[in-house]
Amino acid sequence: MAPDLPLQPLTELVGVFVGGLSGGLAAVRKQFDIFGIVVLAWAAGLGGGLIRDVLVGAVPPVGVARWEFIVTAFAAGIAMYFFHPRLERARRVIAVLDAGALALFSVVGTLKGLELGAGATASVCVGVITGVGGGVLRDLLTGEVPVVLHHRQLYAIPAVVGASLTAVLWSTGTLTLLTELLAVAVVFVLRVVAMRLHLSAPGPWRGGH
Amino acid sequence: MAPDLPLQPLTELVGVFVGGLSGGLAAVRKQFDIFGIVVLAWAAGLGGGLIRDVLVGAVPPVGVARWEFIVTAFAAGIAMYFFHPRLERARRVIAVLDAGALALFSVVGTLKGLELGAGATASVCVGVITGVGGGVLRDLLTGEVPVVLHHRQLYAIPAVVGASLTAVLWSTGTLTLLTELLAVAVVFVLRVVAMRLHLSAPGPWRGGH
Amino acid sequence: MAPDLPLQPLTELVGVFVGGLSGGLAAVRKQFDIFGIVVLAWAAGLGGGLIRDVLVGAVPPVGVARWEFIVTAFAAGIAMYFFHPRLERARRVIAVLDAGALALFSVVGTLKGLELGAGATASVCVGVITGVGGGVLRDLLTGEVPVVLHHRQLYAIPAVVGASLTAVLWSTGTLTLLTELLAVAVVFVLRVVAMRLHLSAPGPWRGGH
Repeated sequence: MAPDLPLQPLTELVGVFVGGLSGGLAAVRKQFDIFGIVVLAWAAGLGGGLIRDVLVGAVPPVGVARWEFIVTAFAAGIAMYFFHPRLERARRVIAVLDAGALALFSVVGTLKGLELGAGATASVCVGVITGVGGGVLRDLLTGEVPVVLHHRQLYAIPAVVGASLTAVLWSTGTLTLLTELLAVAVVFVLRVVAMRLHLSAPGPWRGGH
Repeated sequence: MAPDLPLQPLTELVGVFVGGLSGGLAAVRKQFDIFGIVVLAWAAGLGGGLIRDVLVGAVPPVGVARWEFIVTAFAAGIAMYFFHPRLERARRVIAVLDAGALALFSVVGTLKGLELGAGATASVCVGVITGVGGGVLRDLLTGEVPVVLHHRQLYAIPAVVGASLTAVLWSTGTLTLLTELLAVAVVFVLRVVAMRLHLSAPGPWRGGH
Repeated sequence: MAPDLPLQPLTELVGVFVGGLSGGLAAVRKQFDIFGIVVLAWAAGLGGGLIRDVLVGAVPPVGVARWEFIVTAFAAGIAMYFFHPRLERARRVIAVLDAGALALFSVVGTLKGLELGAGATASVCVGVITGVGGGVLRDLLTGEVPVVLHHRQLYAIPAVVGASLTAVLWSTGTLTLLTELLAVAVVFVLRVVAMRLHLSAPGPWRGGH
């Protein structure tokens, strides 16, 4: 049932680069040194996939084994090192690219789990982790509480939707390049709309007193 | 030598739920959104077992692969989301349940290692990690120093005793349902007595100057 | 191509002990209890190798499976518990020993990856992680931003050099006990010279405005 997925290689590199920019920026803001900036770019760009690979037993993970991914993440860190004032001004563009990376990673991460026979439940979980894990690592390594857990923007929910959709397509034998692209588009649109409309997840319930 | 362990399935779910409550509560206190609360419940309820499974190579780990466990942890998070003021008042009950979860997880975690052929040393280590790991993840994800490392209550020591006891029972061929229950009871009683008597582990030695 | 490496067993234990001292000291400074101090010694002394083993699929990792390593790390924690005022005064000696541990771990960690067939890229990555990972875990568990990411001393760069050198020696079939020792020596000398001369990695670039 595993379709050829020709969209992956290049777009994944773009996703890694965008994730890497967010890590590099966080490191620059914390006044990390050049090594720390590059490591943060690596953690943010490849950390989600790294946790995924460990959880499904695909070792050594892509994040340490595939030099073209590692070089891409490092390049994002180095770009941020040199151009952070300009890149900070491009924040909006980066946020949209980041929505694309989230969409791609959550769908592709779920697929990797399914292809390795991890089962639907595990695959959805690792798909979501692939999407949001890099940001969680980035935040932990810069001493911040992971922003995905408390910022109340809809960030993880689109990933959950995309991962679930992918698992459904897979189980029903309807996963093709087209439907895969559709799943990616759904996550992307959900995320961008949430940003535009400032949709937010609710905080702790106040009515239970 | 591996006995049938009929006590596990249901009691483990209870353990996951109780661990999940502690994660949900930590998230509510940090004003996390509903997604963050549910994730913290998952991390606290299933994180110890997840680390254990990664360390013994049982991938994908229970914490991402078994939907009944995941749903249980999520339910604990949702319960905390709606009822946190009441559940905070039930803190004492939760502390006792938590002692039960610690007891169960440390014994069952050790057994899983032994059954997978990890050897006595590794099994005791992963047993203790199963018992305390969820709380460590919970604390890291909420930006706190892990309470088990500094609070000076006897929390980990009972887990160490229980894991070691389980390994001894296994190696001597005396592990039965009865002796397993006894090991769980020993951890539970040690933990509850430590709470009641405010027994504490010593801080850094002052006499070495 | 894998040479016998008789230098490893004993020197690795020394490395674990020195790493353990740094973890124990961090825990003492945070007023952790005796359990926390011992756990931090374990995390700092064995954490790098533990992450390495998980990433290359060598489970259960040495850090939970080999009692002589675990006892060594615990001994470092207990030594720090009792003698921390004196050991703090010996900071310089410890810093030099730590340079030795960094050198050894990055070379030996790379070799383990290569021997397990992880490929050159992954092996260099896990070699560096072996060298610096224990310190990162130590810092995360004590609520600090990992010092290796921001302190601007050359700490990781020597590990990168040593890991790369080891991979080159391996690929070219020139890895012998002698050349392995040379690689260790290169890392050690680089690190010690960096300390002496206060060489530092640059922070975020200011010229890109």
